[in-house]
Amino acid sequence: MKIEILCTGDEILTGKTVNTNHSYIAQRFTEHALTVYWSTTVGDDRESLSAAFKQASERADAVIVNGGLGPTVDDLSQEVAAAAAGVELELNQEWKIKLKAYYEERGRVMPENNIKQAMLPAGAEFIDNPIGTACGFAVDINKSRFFFTPGVPREMKRMINEQVLPRLLSMRGSEVVSRLKTFHTFGIGESRADRLLADIIQSNSQSNGVIKLGFQTHFPQLETKLSVLADDENAIDSLLKPAEAALREKLGNFILCEDDETLETLILNKLKESNHTLSCIEMATGGAIATRLMKHETSVSVLKQCRVSHHVDQLAETSETIDVSADCAATLADTVKTSTGSSHALVVLTAESTEDKRPCLEVFIGIADPSGSCQRRAILHGRPGWTRLGAAELALDCLRRRMLGLPVDEKIDFEQQ
Amino acid sequence: MKIEILCTGDEILTGKTVNTNHSYIAQRFTEHALTVYWSTTVGDDRESLSAAFKQASERADAVIVNGGLGPTVDDLSQEVAAAAAGVELELNQEWKIKLKAYYEERGRVMPENNIKQAMLPAGAEFIDNPIGTACGFAVDINKSRFFFTPGVPREMKRMINEQVLPRLLSMRGSEVVSRLKTFHTFGIGESRADRLLADIIQSNSQSNGVIKLGFQTHFPQLETKLSVLADDENAIDSLLKPAEAALREKLGNFILCEDDETLETLILNKLKESNHTLSCIEMATGGAIATRLMKHETSVSVLKQCRVSHHVDQLAETSETIDVSADCAATLADTVKTSTGSSHALVVLTAESTEDKRPCLEVFIGIADPSGSCQRRAILHGRPGWTRLGAAELALDCLRRRMLGLPVDEKIDFEQQ
Repeated sequence: MKIEILCTGDEILTGKTVNTNHSYIAQRFTEHALTVYWSTTVGDDRESLSAAFKQASERADAVIVNGGLGPTVDDLSQEVAAAAAGVELELNQEWKIKLKAYYEERGRVMPENNIKQAMLPAGAEFIDNPIGTACGFAVDINKSRFFFTPGVPREMKRMINEQVLPRLLSMRGSEVVSRLKTFHTFGIGESRADRLLADIIQSNSQSNGVIKLGFQTHFPQLETKLSVLADDENAIDSLLKPAEAALREKLGNFILCEDDETLETLILNKLKESNHTLSCIEMATGGAIATRLMKHETSVSVLKQCRVSHHVDQLAETSETIDVSADCAATLADTVKTSTGSSHALVVLTAESTEDKRPCLEVFIGIADPSGSCQRRAILHGRPGWTRLGAAELALDCLRRRMLGLPVDEKIDFEQQ
Repeated sequence: MKIEILCTGDEILTGKTVNTNHSYIAQRFTEHALTVYWSTTVGDDRESLSAAFKQASERADAVIVNGGLGPTVDDLSQEVAAAAAGVELELNQEWKIKLKAYYEERGRVMPENNIKQAMLPAGAEFIDNPIGTACGFAVDINKSRFFFTPGVPREMKRMINEQVLPRLLSMRGSEVVSRLKTFHTFGIGESRADRLLADIIQSNSQSNGVIKLGFQTHFPQLETKLSVLADDENAIDSLLKPAEAALREKLGNFILCEDDETLETLILNKLKESNHTLSCIEMATGGAIATRLMKHETSVSVLKQCRVSHHVDQLAETSETIDVSADCAATLADTVKTSTGSSHALVVLTAESTEDKRPCLEVFIGIADPSGSCQRRAILHGRPGWTRLGAAELALDCLRRRMLGLPVDEKIDFEQQ
C-alpha cells in the first residue's frame, strides 16, 4: 500500500514553521510498517492544491492531507477536496451542533465563518476531532482514499493515532496487528548496539509475523526500537518476548528506561517514592541537569536546588584555589547534601583538555546519599557541546546506577577506555 | 519565477529526521522575495527520484535538490540527474584533486567509493563546497535549472547563501538587489505590532523598489522583518532608512536587539566591556536564564553563578519562612551580589495564582548593580509553561533596561495592565 503525505499551508511552504507534523505522521506510520513513499508540501492556493490532489490520487493508495481545515478564507481543503471528488459541499449537522456546543461551553458565541468547518464533501466519511473545531473526513479521489486532518499538532496527533492509523491498518487488508517497544540507553554507540543485536533479533522472525529492529540517536542517548507486525496479539507476544529478553541481556545496565519513561522521571519518581530529596551542582554543563529535572512537576517536591557555574570556586563557595578532581566532587556532594538539607546530592565537575590533539572533557562526578558517597572519573571525546551534554547525561546515569545498586563506574563507549 | 525544493532521503521521508533543511532554504528564499511554490520529499530510490525530477522539471523554473550527494550506494542524485538530463556521468578532475587533498590534510587516505562524489553529469556547472566532500552542481532538465546541494546542514547553508542564492537572483533577470533587516522585541504582541507598523511601512513603497513587513513569533520574543527588493543599493537605502526609523520610533524601548544579536549576547558583551560580572537566582523558571547565558563563551568570564530552585527558602539559604515579593527579590539581589563577589545580580521569583479563574504567574524581579538596586512586579497570563518562559525573558529584559538606563517598569502586552 502506497501512502503519500500532503502538507498544506504557506507557513510550512515558506519555512516559517518547521514541518514537524510530517515527521510525526511518517514516524507513526513507519512504526506500524506502513510505507510513506512520497511527501508533498504546497501553499494555500486552489491551483496548487488541485494539482497536488490530482497527482497524489494517481499514484497513492492512501493520502493524508494535513492542514487547511480552519475557518478562514485561506483554508481550502474541503472545497478543493469536493471539487477533486466531483461532489458538492454539504452541511454536516452533527458537527454544526458540536461546534455550537464547543463555543457555548467556553461562554462564547460561535463566529459565523466557523460554520465553514462543518461543510464536508457530499458522501464523505466523518472523522471526529474531540479536542478542536476542525473535524476530519475521508473521501475517495480517483483510485486513492484521502484522509483530511487538522494542522494543529495536538489535534493532528490524536486524530492520526485514534482514527487514521486504524483505518489504514484495516485498508492494508489482512488482520494484522502491530506493537512498538522502545528502550533508551546511554553508553553504547549505535554501531555497537547494531552489532550486539542484529543477529539475535533476526533469528526471532516467524511465519506468523515479523519483528524489526531500529535505532534512533538522540545524543547522548540511543533509542532502540522493536516494531512487531503479526497476525494477532499472541503472535506479537511470541515474537517480542524473546527479542525483549535478548535485548535486555545484551544492553543490560546501559538501559536507562523503556517506552515513555525518561531518565529524569525515573530518578525523580524513585526519589519521591522513598521521600528523598536532591540537590545538584553543575560545572560548565549549561544548567542541563537543572533544566531536565525541573521540566517535571515531581521536581517541585524532590529537587531542593541546583547551582550552576563555570567556576569551581563559585560552586564550592570558597575563595581558595581548588583543583577539580573526583575527590573534590565527592566532598562537595557531602557538603551540599548537608547545607541544603537534601538526602541526595549530585555533583558534576569538568575540565577541558586535549589528548593526541583531540579536544576532550575530563568529567568528575560525586554522589552523596544516606548510605555514604561515591565518585567517578571519565574522559569524554568530541566537540565541546557534545561532551558537555555527555557529562550531564553521565552524571544523571551515575545517580540512577547508584540508586539501583548497579556499578557506577562501568565504562561507556564515548570515554577513553 | 517558480521554485521547487526537492528533498531526498529515507531519513527525512520516514520522519526520523525533521526536515529543517527545507525550512532553512525556503526562509532564505522568501527573505529575498523568491517564491517557493512547491516542495517534494522522496526516498533514496531511483524510481521515485526520477519521477520527482521529471515532475519538477515540467512545472518549475528552478529546482533545488537537497541530499543524495554522499559516497554510498544509496546516494543517487548525480546518477539520476544525468539520466534525467540525458547525459553520461564524467569525472570532474578538479574535484577529484580537492577530495584527495581533503583527506590528506586530515592524515587519511581517501576511501575508493568517495571518487563517486567527483562524478558529475556531463556539461554540469560545478558548484564549490569549501567545507565538505560533496560538491554541488547545476544542470538543465527540460525547462528547469536544477541545483544540487548537500544534505549536511552546515554545508547546505553555506552553498545556498554563497552559491545558489546569487544564481537564482541573477536568473530572476532584472538587476534586483535585496536586503533583510530584523528587529527582536519583547513585550509587544504580533497583532499590536502589526497595527503599529502596517501603515507606516506601506507608505514607504517607491517605484524603484518594494519593502515588505513580516513577523515571526519566537515566544516570548517577536521578530519583525523588513525585506527590501530594489533596483540598486541606493534604492534599498532610500526605502529601508525611513522604515527603520519609523519602526525604531514605534517599537522604541521594546526592541531588544537587531539582526544576529540576541538579548543574552547583548547583556554579556555589555557586562564584559565594562569588566562587570553577574550572578543570577531563578525560582521555578527551570534554569532558563542559566541555560541561555551559559550557551555563550562570553559567559565564562562574566557569569559567576546561577542558583535555581522551586523554593525561595533554598534560594535565600534560610530556614525561615519567606513571602516572595518585589522587596524580597531586591534584597536577595543585594545579598547574592555580595556573597558571590559579582558587580551585578539578577533575581527572579515567582508565585502561581489565578485571577478570574485564569491561571497566571506573579513575577518579582530584583536587580543589584554598582549604583544600587531596583525591582519590578508583573502578573503574566497564560499557560504555566509560557508564563515561566515569559518570567525569564522579563528578568533578562529588565537587566538590559537597567544597564541601558531605560525604564525597567514599562508595561508589556502579556501582563495585567
